[in-house]
Amino acid sequence: MINKLIEKIKKTKAPIVVGLDPTLSFVPEHLLKASYQEYGETLEGAADAVWQFNKGIIDSVYDLIPAVKPQIAMYEQLGVEGLKAFQKTVDYCHEKDLVVIGDVKRGDIGSTSAAYAVAHLGKLTVGSKRLSAFDEDFATVNPYLGTDGIQPFLDVCKEEKKGIFILVKTSNPSSGEFQDQLIDGRPLYEYVGEKVAQWGAQHMGDDYSYVGAVVGATYPQVGRVMRRVMPKAYILVPGYGAQGGKGADLVHYFNEDGLGAIVNSSRGIIAAYQQEQYAHFSPEGYADASRQAVLDMIADIDGALQRAK
Amino acid sequence: MINKLIEKIKKTKAPIVVGLDPTLSFVPEHLLKASYQEYGETLEGAADAVWQFNKGIIDSVYDLIPAVKPQIAMYEQLGVEGLKAFQKTVDYCHEKDLVVIGDVKRGDIGSTSAAYAVAHLGKLTVGSKRLSAFDEDFATVNPYLGTDGIQPFLDVCKEEKKGIFILVKTSNPSSGEFQDQLIDGRPLYEYVGEKVAQWGAQHMGDDYSYVGAVVGATYPQVGRVMRRVMPKAYILVPGYGAQGGKGADLVHYFNEDGLGAIVNSSRGIIAAYQQEQYAHFSPEGYADASRQAVLDMIADIDGALQRAK
Repeated sequence: MINKLIEKIKKTKAPIVVGLDPTLSFVPEHLLKASYQEYGETLEGAADAVWQFNKGIIDSVYDLIPAVKPQIAMYEQLGVEGLKAFQKTVDYCHEKDLVVIGDVKRGDIGSTSAAYAVAHLGKLTVGSKRLSAFDEDFATVNPYLGTDGIQPFLDVCKEEKKGIFILVKTSNPSSGEFQDQLIDGRPLYEYVGEKVAQWGAQHMGDDYSYVGAVVGATYPQVGRVMRRVMPKAYILVPGYGAQGGKGADLVHYFNEDGLGAIVNSSRGIIAAYQQEQYAHFSPEGYADASRQAVLDMIADIDGALQRAK
Repeated sequence: MINKLIEKIKKTKAPIVVGLDPTLSFVPEHLLKASYQEYGETLEGAADAVWQFNKGIIDSVYDLIPAVKPQIAMYEQLGVEGLKAFQKTVDYCHEKDLVVIGDVKRGDIGSTSAAYAVAHLGKLTVGSKRLSAFDEDFATVNPYLGTDGIQPFLDVCKEEKKGIFILVKTSNPSSGEFQDQLIDGRPLYEYVGEKVAQWGAQHMGDDYSYVGAVVGATYPQVGRVMRRVMPKAYILVPGYGAQGGKGADLVHYFNEDGLGAIVNSSRGIIAAYQQEQYAHFSPEGYADASRQAVLDMIADIDGALQRAK
């Protein structure tokens, strides 16, 4: 799957991923109204609106991008109905041949971590059958519990040729509270990054590992260091756009082969129509606004990479 | 809700929580067979078996215990059908007046953490309605992302009078890889524990905070230290029984008032019938075996607390 991701990045010339994180405040009024009319002001109604919203965006941008990253929290808050919408979204993205990175940030130990790995990347034995639950291609994983939490994911990834992105340095302002604490003079995130490189050596694709890392766009100097610490890890970079990261900040997250990083934008793309720059698309044209925002993001990042050559 | 938890612990004289972590290998053959007959060898069939299994155990032990801790990973691996079983389990435990600790180990930032908090503890605005998704009483939370990840949970907890347990020192062998790393001579988990105490001061019940901590039973010396670092935090203690922790190891997790800790056992209770000690109950009597295992666990912990006085 890491080979497929890289192949699609090369083909689209777009090292980007669109975060499908639909809070209800991003969903245009006309979609909410239609879904509430059909299903009432219920979680089912809200989940239907979210699904219709996603479908519009996917249809509008799928030919431009290699991958999407649905954030499961936004679906989980809609309960079982929301998780149905999550599943429909994952399946629909697969129909459109998009790589799906489940942003689930799971992490536990032993059989519990194995259950999460099965839920999102693997198959469960039910009687004589082997069945998948949510079936994403990659999942994000929290490293706080150590190898016991990661190994079950690695085992499932090997079996299914799928991958994970491990949280190393997140993009938020308080990420430093624990992640930046110095251990023998080096920050914790660097120590976690070294582990990512070790874990990743267990499960290599052609040029990069199936084990990647999350390093926020908001700390470019950290990106530069972590690129060296984990040369074979793909870096998933959140924090572009709405959180303040810019194309020029991101060049150090890439290797000299022009690969090695994939930059996420969520509300910057899916709620583009709510920004002044794209307001002329109007709420009805939200999907067209998203397409324009994707084109602008690709140009921004490509321009920065070209200038850095 | 922390006041209710404490009241129920006092009433039952049982500072314990039963972990409802039903892997399919714990579910007796006769339940699997019946569910597969009705729903086929499908995720729906497996989820039905899990629900029937849970119901048997809850009916058998609810009068002895203050709380249950369903582990959502075990349901998530069954997909949407599994999450329906999770929801039914939470609702049924509430009917039996049990406090429900959702072992979800979620953690993200900003609006995403807020969405997780809403999913498990809060309410979402849908049109003119305020709706709950899974509606547990407490949730476990991962601290790796810092205050930005925790604050949205605190906000929802204050609104709903609910609580969280933050992972401080987990019970698994590799928990030390990151959690034990020394920062200015003190381990990371101690640093996280201090933050738990600070966050907890924002949201106090009568005697204890709504913000508790997870500290594994397998590291008794850590329990002793963390008890002092977070005097007002309830400590949720996993790792009893199957993972090797014993009653005598646990006395230091409690305060002098005999309160301050609640000890979890999962497979030691729910799969008791698979242990030699309880094999005479047979698979058909799995719920009676669980009841006996609960009684034995209460006696073990109470004995240890009495001897420590």
